Amino acid sequence: MLFWNRLASRVGTAGRLLASVHAVPPPRLPAVGRLLRASYVSRTAVSAENSKSTADDGQLAFPCVDLLADRQRALDNGPEPAYDRVVTGYETYQHQGEFCLDHGGKLRDFRLAYETWGKLSADRTNAILLHTGLSASSHARSHEKNLAPGWWEKFIGPGRPLDTSKFFVICTNVLGGCYGSTGPSSVDPATGERYATRFPMITLFDMVRAQFELIDHLGIRRLHASVGASMGGMQSLAAAAMFPDRVGRLITISACARSHPYSIALRHTQRQVLMSDANWNKGHYYGRVPPHIGMKLAREIATITYRSGPEWEQRFGRKRADDTKDPAMCPDFLIETYLDHQGERFCLQYDANSWLYISKAMDMFDISESAQLCLAEKRRNTHGNNDLWAAQLSAHAKALEAIDDNIPTDLTSSADFAANERADLARGLGAVQMPTLVLGVQSDLLFPHWQQREVAESLRAAGNRTVTYYELDAIYGHDTFLIDVVTVGAAVKGHLENSIA
Amino acid sequence: MLFWNRLASRVGTAGRLLASVHAVPPPRLPAVGRLLRASYVSRTAVSAENSKSTADDGQLAFPCVDLLADRQRALDNGPEPAYDRVVTGYETYQHQGEFCLDHGGKLRDFRLAYETWGKLSADRTNAILLHTGLSASSHARSHEKNLAPGWWEKFIGPGRPLDTSKFFVICTNVLGGCYGSTGPSSVDPATGERYATRFPMITLFDMVRAQFELIDHLGIRRLHASVGASMGGMQSLAAAAMFPDRVGRLITISACARSHPYSIALRHTQRQVLMSDANWNKGHYYGRVPPHIGMKLAREIATITYRSGPEWEQRFGRKRADDTKDPAMCPDFLIETYLDHQGERFCLQYDANSWLYISKAMDMFDISESAQLCLAEKRRNTHGNNDLWAAQLSAHAKALEAIDDNIPTDLTSSADFAANERADLARGLGAVQMPTLVLGVQSDLLFPHWQQREVAESLRAAGNRTVTYYELDAIYGHDTFLIDVVTVGAAVKGHLENSIA
Repeated sequence: MLFWNRLASRVGTAGRLLASVHAVPPPRLPAVGRLLRASYVSRTAVSAENSKSTADDGQLAFPCVDLLADRQRALDNGPEPAYDRVVTGYETYQHQGEFCLDHGGKLRDFRLAYETWGKLSADRTNAILLHTGLSASSHARSHEKNLAPGWWEKFIGPGRPLDTSKFFVICTNVLGGCYGSTGPSSVDPATGERYATRFPMITLFDMVRAQFELIDHLGIRRLHASVGASMGGMQSLAAAAMFPDRVGRLITISACARSHPYSIALRHTQRQVLMSDANWNKGHYYGRVPPHIGMKLAREIATITYRSGPEWEQRFGRKRADDTKDPAMCPDFLIETYLDHQGERFCLQYDANSWLYISKAMDMFDISESAQLCLAEKRRNTHGNNDLWAAQLSAHAKALEAIDDNIPTDLTSSADFAANERADLARGLGAVQMPTLVLGVQSDLLFPHWQQREVAESLRAAGNRTVTYYELDAIYGHDTFLIDVVTVGAAVKGHLENSIA
Repeated sequence: MLFWNRLASRVGTAGRLLASVHAVPPPRLPAVGRLLRASYVSRTAVSAENSKSTADDGQLAFPCVDLLADRQRALDNGPEPAYDRVVTGYETYQHQGEFCLDHGGKLRDFRLAYETWGKLSADRTNAILLHTGLSASSHARSHEKNLAPGWWEKFIGPGRPLDTSKFFVICTNVLGGCYGSTGPSSVDPATGERYATRFPMITLFDMVRAQFELIDHLGIRRLHASVGASMGGMQSLAAAAMFPDRVGRLITISACARSHPYSIALRHTQRQVLMSDANWNKGHYYGRVPPHIGMKLAREIATITYRSGPEWEQRFGRKRADDTKDPAMCPDFLIETYLDHQGERFCLQYDANSWLYISKAMDMFDISESAQLCLAEKRRNTHGNNDLWAAQLSAHAKALEAIDDNIPTDLTSSADFAANERADLARGLGAVQMPTLVLGVQSDLLFPHWQQREVAESLRAAGNRTVTYYELDAIYGHDTFLIDVVTVGAAVKGHLENSIA
């Protein structure tokens, strides 16, 4: 109860940014000299009694483990978390009719939550589709129906990088999410029960298709731009590849053209940790206690991949949460209390099954030609041609075929293999000929900057002569796009507003 | 039963190296051209029936979760894992008398498991003390009492980097470990029960002190060299700082002078995952089912920090374990089955409490002057001066004081703060004036190479004129020291055998 009540007073996905920046004060710099000797004296001056974290028989204390047990008890007696109440004030688009998915699944219908900022112009040519990261909601910026700051609060508004005095900005909660869009926590109209892990596998391509159903519904033929970072940058790239004639400009930040094994490994551990929580119960936890421990741990691991060593070096160094205490196995160093806090505040805020499905969709993302053709074939085999997207796919395949194909036919070396992979990517991005901004951050460990360089080089190899690639030396790692409004913001604004012949 | 039996037939810590190199075959390179199109055809040609991983109602299957439940049931009925039987054929040193620890704890006595290779010379000057990483045993190389390959098998032997025709090599299982040395799984002589989490907090300095009790016992006054990588490299550095007149040469590989927040964060998540396993039971699982799930997950996270993205890119790429199967939440990509395998084979092989204590000892490691003085003061406060080490500590403190101290007294900027930290490190390493080899690897994420550069620069700042620093461009990440016998081996051999005036 306590935890859920505390949670309900917070707001959605803006949290990560705010908490990251403000939750833990940065270590203060020493005002006077010989700090280290001084702190050594003050530390040892503390009485032995106050600093004890062990019982008389030497038994260590584990307050962090007790906390989890306390929450379990509270949740046993409390109401179930309702994720669709964490974020409010969004619009919904209800799609009527069957929606066919890449891996053979179908949804009888679906709903997308979305929010907009600015005004759609009379000729409907000023729309920007903004894509989100894994756990974000449609609430990218505050507005009168929801005053809480959004996850890209400073990037959207009059005069801002996404300038709402010029553009009509649309952001959705992705298909598979839990903030108002159809996902595993939704009720399956076929059974009247929650989907849970009967929800079909979805891809980032499926998510983008669903978004374009909304774009159609809004009467928008062509977007001024498709914009996104992290998973949003992958979707943004997918949107440009799937609907090249409907995307005027492309921005993809801290993303990739295909998920690489190190990123898959990092997400794998998060999923495994979550799935090992007995409360997860193979996804059937609705109406029961959700896997709060697994989600907390998964989020802590994820948080490590969102930031960087250099930032934490500056921010936390080797500071302990309480220098007067004996060392402990539970959070002890300041960096540990920070991670604990990040996990704590997230664990009842986002649906565990949504996390699993979307995390897996990221792993599966590969925009190379061979991967796209493979999915297209699977769609044809399972859904036949009675599919809204068959024409689109076939047109797309045709566009891919049109790319000049001069790969040698005898590949025996590792270099040839790599060359083939690069050519495969270039062909997969053959349709993406619109002006494109690719942004990478050198301190990003989750999507290392060579992956953004791969995107830029693949686009250039595919003949796109309007590719801008910036590599930032920011220290915030993967999360730089949430924080660095000066550097990231200017690049975005420049690309969106620069007149291009 | 099944799992434990399978485990018992394997041997200790050699596993990580062997499994890493051989367990999963590297992806084959294409022998003929147009591989990607070909594989696209073969993939989609598979019948829909064989590839299904869902039930008729769409319920996804989770074989990896079922496996954990199976093991839980098997362990419920089977004997308890006996970690001290995982490795065999070692000698033991039994220390009689109280052993005082840095953080105020005491051991009534302790035991160290150790193994040796080569022959101690008549003048006892040819000994090399080899320190281990977190989970390694004393079994660094095979010998007649234990024929299984050791964790540094190729590095030790006649003519090898640690040349047993010249040197007498000693390797111990660290204090706190579970392979024959006293640790949390040992019986407390005061109570007749296992220590579990009544075991006192230990530091890397405590481990080194215990090792030097053994060195005394062997009648060795001065080591030819102290050698180690990873946590072993931290211990090696500590040995040189604590016993400068007893260490002839120093080698520290892929280690650091103090643990940094990113490494602490990575170990924090591993500990949290382990401690959240209900079977862990605040450390009191002896005689019951051990926290096999938590250990498996912790090891999977750790494995990510042992290797590198570039290596996995070459080795696994985006290969799936079985291309004919539908995508699944359980291990699916080859990188996932690799991680799963690493966790699986480790989870009953190492004592969970040992992992916690030693992992925490790594976090606490800081060889700066202020940190050492702080610990020394704590020892004096809790153990008084009736301590074998008081004289040593006081001599050491005196050596530290002798270092020229010209730190400005008004520090107000971040640059001053960093300068002060560097000076604090240099003073902490002031006694380390012997010839030193520091080795770093550019692809190491757990101990990034700037941390080894920090070690080298601190030693030079402290006046050591015989510091060699090599930075390797190997792609194996932190584990390079286990694999690259050519590059790492030659550097080690050169440093140990080069005549130094």
